[in-house]
Amino acid sequence: MSRAYLDHASSSPLRPAALEAMLPYLTGAGADPGRVHSDGRATRVALEDAREAVAGLLGARPREVVFTATGTEAVNTAVYGAVARADPGVRPHVVTTAVEHSAVLESCGRADADVTVVGVDGRARVAVTDVLAALRPDTALVNVQLANHEVGTVQTALAALAGETRARGVLLHVDACAAAGHVPVDFGALGADLCSVTAHKFGGPKGAAALLVRRGVRLPPFVVGGAQERARRAGIEDVPALVGFGAAAAELSADDRLAREASVARAQTDRLVRAACAVEGVTQLGDPDDRLPHLVCLAVEGVEAEPVLLGLDQRGVAVHSGSSCSSEALEPSPVLAAMGVDAERSLRPSVGWSTTDDDVTMFVEAFPEVIGKLRALRA
Amino acid sequence: MSRAYLDHASSSPLRPAALEAMLPYLTGAGADPGRVHSDGRATRVALEDAREAVAGLLGARPREVVFTATGTEAVNTAVYGAVARADPGVRPHVVTTAVEHSAVLESCGRADADVTVVGVDGRARVAVTDVLAALRPDTALVNVQLANHEVGTVQTALAALAGETRARGVLLHVDACAAAGHVPVDFGALGADLCSVTAHKFGGPKGAAALLVRRGVRLPPFVVGGAQERARRAGIEDVPALVGFGAAAAELSADDRLAREASVARAQTDRLVRAACAVEGVTQLGDPDDRLPHLVCLAVEGVEAEPVLLGLDQRGVAVHSGSSCSSEALEPSPVLAAMGVDAERSLRPSVGWSTTDDDVTMFVEAFPEVIGKLRALRA
Repeated sequence: MSRAYLDHASSSPLRPAALEAMLPYLTGAGADPGRVHSDGRATRVALEDAREAVAGLLGARPREVVFTATGTEAVNTAVYGAVARADPGVRPHVVTTAVEHSAVLESCGRADADVTVVGVDGRARVAVTDVLAALRPDTALVNVQLANHEVGTVQTALAALAGETRARGVLLHVDACAAAGHVPVDFGALGADLCSVTAHKFGGPKGAAALLVRRGVRLPPFVVGGAQERARRAGIEDVPALVGFGAAAAELSADDRLAREASVARAQTDRLVRAACAVEGVTQLGDPDDRLPHLVCLAVEGVEAEPVLLGLDQRGVAVHSGSSCSSEALEPSPVLAAMGVDAERSLRPSVGWSTTDDDVTMFVEAFPEVIGKLRALRA
Repeated sequence: MSRAYLDHASSSPLRPAALEAMLPYLTGAGADPGRVHSDGRATRVALEDAREAVAGLLGARPREVVFTATGTEAVNTAVYGAVARADPGVRPHVVTTAVEHSAVLESCGRADADVTVVGVDGRARVAVTDVLAALRPDTALVNVQLANHEVGTVQTALAALAGETRARGVLLHVDACAAAGHVPVDFGALGADLCSVTAHKFGGPKGAAALLVRRGVRLPPFVVGGAQERARRAGIEDVPALVGFGAAAAELSADDRLAREASVARAQTDRLVRAACAVEGVTQLGDPDDRLPHLVCLAVEGVEAEPVLLGLDQRGVAVHSGSSCSSEALEPSPVLAAMGVDAERSLRPSVGWSTTDDDVTMFVEAFPEVIGKLRALRA
C-alpha cells in the first residue's frame, strides 16, 4: 500500500539534493575539519561553504552561524548562554511565552534565573505589550518563537518587539525551528540577537541545526571542551550532515524555491482544512491566516487523538497530534492549554517538499471515515 | 597522487557497512522515532536495534546507552549530570586527571564545583593511590580516561579504581572516546558508573556518540526539552547516524573483528615507531607497551610540529600533532605538559580499519626525508 507521509512538521524526508551533496563526505577520508593536513582543509572548505549557504537562506552573516546537532541544542545554547553572560552575583530574569517549544520552556525552567511566562490569545498569538510589560531591569533574555510548532500561528509582531528589546539592552531569542525553510527568515531584518533553526524539518538532514548569534553578541558556549565553531560549540563537526544542511538551504534559496514550495504547501493544507472541517465537530486551531503554510491543527470533538492517528495510519496516512516533543506519551499539549482549548483531541497534519496532491487526497478520503467509525463505536 | 590517511585518531573514514546501513534512513520517510504512526515506529525499531548493537560492543545493557551527537556532548552530560545531582546547597567536589581530553577538563572547569587535578607520570599514567588521595567527603565525580587520546597510554588500573569509588559512593566517569572500537570495552566488568564513547573514531559516522549510564544511576539531562532517550537527552535522534553507529559496532563485534583489527593496527604502528625512532632525536612518548594499538606519539627534537605536518602532507601523508581539540592554533598540548615533555614537537600518526601497509610505507619513506630537510634548513 502506498503511504501518505503528512508529518513533515515532525521531521521531513531528506531532499535528494542534500543526500547527493552529503555522499562524498560519507565515502571520503572524513577528516576532522580542524586539522591542517590537506584532508582536513578539504572538509573545512566544505563546512564553510555549508555555513555560507545556511547564512544565505536565513539573512545572516556566515560568522553568525553556530552549527549544533539539533534545534533543541541550539535553544539550550541560547538560553544557557544568555543567562551565563548576565552579571555575576545577580540572578537574572528571563521571559518566555506560554506556547514556546518544550526546549525553550525547560531550558528556562532549569536555568539559574527567574522566569516570567507570558500568555497568548486563543489563536496562540502573543501581544508585544504583554512581553514588554513583563520586562524588568534584570531581564537578560526574551524568548518568542517565530511561529508555533503545533498550530502554525506566526508571531507577526516580532520585528516590533526586537526594536524594543534592543533599545533596552535585553537579548531576544527567536525560536524559528518550526518556521525556517517554510517561510522567509531574515535574521538581519528581524533584529533578533539569537535565532534557532533546524535542518530536518525542511528536508535537511537530522544532526544539523544552528544557533544564529548576532555579530557583537558574546555568548558563552553550552557544550564546552573544544574550539570548534569559533569556540562557541565544542565537539567534532558533523560535516556530512552540515553539508546536507547547506545543500538544502541552497536549494531553497535558488529560483524562488522557498516561495514556490510554500505556495504549494498552503494550497495543500487549505484543502486539508476544508475537507476536515466539513466533518461535523471539526475546527481549525491557531491563526487561519497568519500561519505556517505547511502545517495545520485540527480540533476533533468527541474522539481522542490516538485512535484517530492509528485509524489514519491503518489507511496509510501518517499524521501527528499533540506537542512536538512529548510524543511517546501523547501528553496534553501545553500549547493548546495556553490557548484555552481542549488539548486531548487535536490533530496536526503537515506537508512538505515531497508531498503530492495524491497524499492529500488520501487524507481527505480517510479522515471522515475514521472519525465516523470512531464516533459510531462511541455512540 | 595517492594519499596515506594516518589520522584515524582524529576521525576515521566511515566503514562501508555503516554507510550501507544508513542509506535506507537517508532515503526513506525519515520519520521521528517518537511518533506513533508506522513510519515513526519503523525508525524506532531501527534506533533500538542500533542501541542493542552499541550496547553489545561495549558490554552494556541497551537501556544504559544514552545516545548523544558527539563524545564531547557525552562528556558534558556526564560532568553536568554528576554535579547537578549532588546534594543541593553543597558545592560538590570533582576529581580529574591532568591528561583528560579538553571536554572533561573544561566541563569540570565550568561546573559549579571544586576541582582537583591529579597528575600523571612521564608515560601519562595516573596512580590509583593519587586519585584516592584526592577524594573528599563531598566528592561527587571522578574522571579518568580509559586511554589517552594523544599518546595512547591505557589506564590499566581502572577496574581497581572503580571498586574503590563504588565503595565510597562516588561516581566514576571513564572517557573511552579514544579507546572504544580499538580495545575491548566492557562497561559491566569495568564497574564505572558513566562511560563516554564516540562512533567516528572507529569508522562509525560523525554525529553519533553515547554516554553509558549504569543501571540505577539517575543523571539529570544536560540537553533539556524533550523526552527522548528516556528523558536523558532531548532533541530529535539522528537515526541515520545512530544506525551507522550500530552497524559499525556490530561489525566489530562479529568474527573477532575488533581483536583482528587491533592486531593489524599494532603491527602497523610498531613499524611506524621503529622507522621513526631510527631517525636521530626521535623518541616515542607514552607507554610503549600498554597503549592503544592504533596511535603512537613521537617526540621530534629540534623541529616544530607544524612544518613536519606540512612536509608530510606534501608527500601525501596526513598525520596530526598536539591536542585533539586545540587544532586550529596547534597550541601546546596540556597532556604532554603534564607528562613533563616538550609539547611543541610531537607528532601523532594513527591508523585504522582502512589503513594499508602501503600507507605505512609512505610514512616510513617520507618521515626521515622531511625531518632531514627541516633540520638542514635550520642548521
